[in-house]
Amino acid sequence: MSATVDFAPLRDYLEATDLDGYCIDADASDSDQRYVSGFTAPDPYQTVVTPDGVHLLVSGLEYGRAKTEAAADSVTRRSEYDYRKLVAEHGPYEAKSRLIAAFLEDHGVDSLAVPRNFPTGTADGLREQGLSVTVEPEGLVEDVRSTKDEWELEQIRATQRANEAAMATAEELIATADVADDGSLVHDGEVLTSERVKTEIEVTLLRHGCGLDDTIVACAADGADPHDRGSGPLEVDELIVIDIFPRDKETGYFGDMTRTFARGDPGDEARRRYEVTEEAYEAALEAVEAGVTGEAVHDVACDVIEDAGYETLRSDPSTETGFIHSTGHGVGLDIHEQPSVAPSGGELEPGHVISIEPGIYDPAVGGVRIEDLIAVTEDGYENLTDYRVGLEPSSE
Amino acid sequence: MSATVDFAPLRDYLEATDLDGYCIDADASDSDQRYVSGFTAPDPYQTVVTPDGVHLLVSGLEYGRAKTEAAADSVTRRSEYDYRKLVAEHGPYEAKSRLIAAFLEDHGVDSLAVPRNFPTGTADGLREQGLSVTVEPEGLVEDVRSTKDEWELEQIRATQRANEAAMATAEELIATADVADDGSLVHDGEVLTSERVKTEIEVTLLRHGCGLDDTIVACAADGADPHDRGSGPLEVDELIVIDIFPRDKETGYFGDMTRTFARGDPGDEARRRYEVTEEAYEAALEAVEAGVTGEAVHDVACDVIEDAGYETLRSDPSTETGFIHSTGHGVGLDIHEQPSVAPSGGELEPGHVISIEPGIYDPAVGGVRIEDLIAVTEDGYENLTDYRVGLEPSSE
Repeated sequence: MSATVDFAPLRDYLEATDLDGYCIDADASDSDQRYVSGFTAPDPYQTVVTPDGVHLLVSGLEYGRAKTEAAADSVTRRSEYDYRKLVAEHGPYEAKSRLIAAFLEDHGVDSLAVPRNFPTGTADGLREQGLSVTVEPEGLVEDVRSTKDEWELEQIRATQRANEAAMATAEELIATADVADDGSLVHDGEVLTSERVKTEIEVTLLRHGCGLDDTIVACAADGADPHDRGSGPLEVDELIVIDIFPRDKETGYFGDMTRTFARGDPGDEARRRYEVTEEAYEAALEAVEAGVTGEAVHDVACDVIEDAGYETLRSDPSTETGFIHSTGHGVGLDIHEQPSVAPSGGELEPGHVISIEPGIYDPAVGGVRIEDLIAVTEDGYENLTDYRVGLEPSSE
Repeated sequence: MSATVDFAPLRDYLEATDLDGYCIDADASDSDQRYVSGFTAPDPYQTVVTPDGVHLLVSGLEYGRAKTEAAADSVTRRSEYDYRKLVAEHGPYEAKSRLIAAFLEDHGVDSLAVPRNFPTGTADGLREQGLSVTVEPEGLVEDVRSTKDEWELEQIRATQRANEAAMATAEELIATADVADDGSLVHDGEVLTSERVKTEIEVTLLRHGCGLDDTIVACAADGADPHDRGSGPLEVDELIVIDIFPRDKETGYFGDMTRTFARGDPGDEARRRYEVTEEAYEAALEAVEAGVTGEAVHDVACDVIEDAGYETLRSDPSTETGFIHSTGHGVGLDIHEQPSVAPSGGELEPGHVISIEPGIYDPAVGGVRIEDLIAVTEDGYENLTDYRVGLEPSSE
């Protein structure tokens, strides 16, 4: 199973630019490749979209699986173009261009559009073989990917269920920890560090079929830098930001959620920041519906935070405290994709999946961030996240 | 800490081709970028190697960390070239080319070499800004990366220690399983599936600071396809191939190891194949030393397997049973990198890290593969793997 791809924008582009095909040369870690081909392989393969079909060129090793799994009109293996002979005669570099040129020619493609990240080695090689290669500058495939079909929404919901289980693991560790004399949290007789909580989050995700490269469990000043993953002992009376963005190992779809907790008493100012962040999060959620721009949703979050007396990048582009990132981003096969819920963020459409994640930061107080993942609908949104919002950690 | 990079081959290439610099435009998931810059960031950044230095261009977000961590002579942030203004005036696509062109100009680079996978969008954009861009076709950086320094060897050894712990977890599960009436292995009252063993492998790796995208636990006919990850119940009297290739989450260096086990009696033919594979593995190991080619080592493994009466891709390029892959590959920041221990594999050099992994496959019997990770030395090899070879699983 894979997403049903709307090829119309790509084909409109080909027609408007008078080009014969759109070609991707990448392995499946490139989400555009994975999406357009409906196939995954660890080594680069080639997909070309023409006015009347989608065609794959794969190694012999991947041929059988590609025939069964890929969402393509045809699959060709390299050996059909005497690839070994090409390598023997021209070396691996030129052989690859000759191979792809022959494949494209068979599909009537002399002039092609390619994504910005198309390998220059392939582009220049194809040019040497007489093809014309033009970069499609807007990121059309990423744009198509931003609208999810029902099957994709189901995959993202499934990842977010795993995410909720992982967040519950983390919250329970913090809720049930003891407090040592020096203020650090202690669990089962050992100091509860950021690293330890991250490991338990990741173990929970693994047991739910998800993996992830990174997690944020950031206490006190660490949490005031949105890019700090956090390290060392977690402390009582401090804000602890937990941001989890797992990826389903099979489907490749991401989830994303952030909660902020504090054991003990983080102080009045921290509590106030939590309330303001929660208010901004709720206001931004309520502002979401098809036709509203990402920029407008971001402005709603900024309004709440500025009205409460904190800086935002809108009120002061150089501020290093306050609300110092955007309100959200698209989530799908990439953790950060279109659309953008930020200045210059365009119109939201039904099927867009976005995070809503305002936050307020200051090294002197720590960080607060609250994040849900939602799907945009005609008249509002569906919250894909089912997890309590609250500063005090609970073990239930 | 990071590897000490030998820039001489790149600088020799620049001198020979009369080019001013070698530029990488990629995020740190590109191992060449990670290696040359000594830096990791999730979004693309630019590194240029000139005759007298290594220079980085990064976002403001990464600037502080890059100044501290990168192995570079200079780090520049985008704002120094008024990047926001460039985006406002020219749009994000052209702004990026203008930004990088200005950065390159500041380092005296008008003509540049780029790797094959350099983004065509950037290459064509720089050409529009008047720079000359030439693809370096040989993969010079990957070639430099193939020779590991002592610090890198230490990182690979550390990953391989985690790998050994994970393999022990898997072996113990198989060794201590009960056998149900239908022949499936059962552990703690539940069927022991490939999926379950993989999860326990990955949990063990996580607890040792390593992650991985994939593991192979393949029983019976599944194990006869070297690319099948395995699924479903593990069975008594069948060969079970376990191939683990973890990556350290901090350093990015991979480990790699395969063992084959069987509970009960897999039969005389399976045992014979195990013995022949072990003999091929030992012969290949003994053949390794600096100055010997990867092809020669591969030939030694093929000799043993063919002498025992099994096909290899050398004896029959179209065979689908027998020894149907190469003897080994380089391992480092990528799981598959230079050098190649295969037909056309070049001369091994001290500091090369390679796998030695012969195997014999047939769907009717199952698969056998035995793999260690080793470092090439002047007069032989250092085995980076410390794990017993044996068909019968042990819980000790």
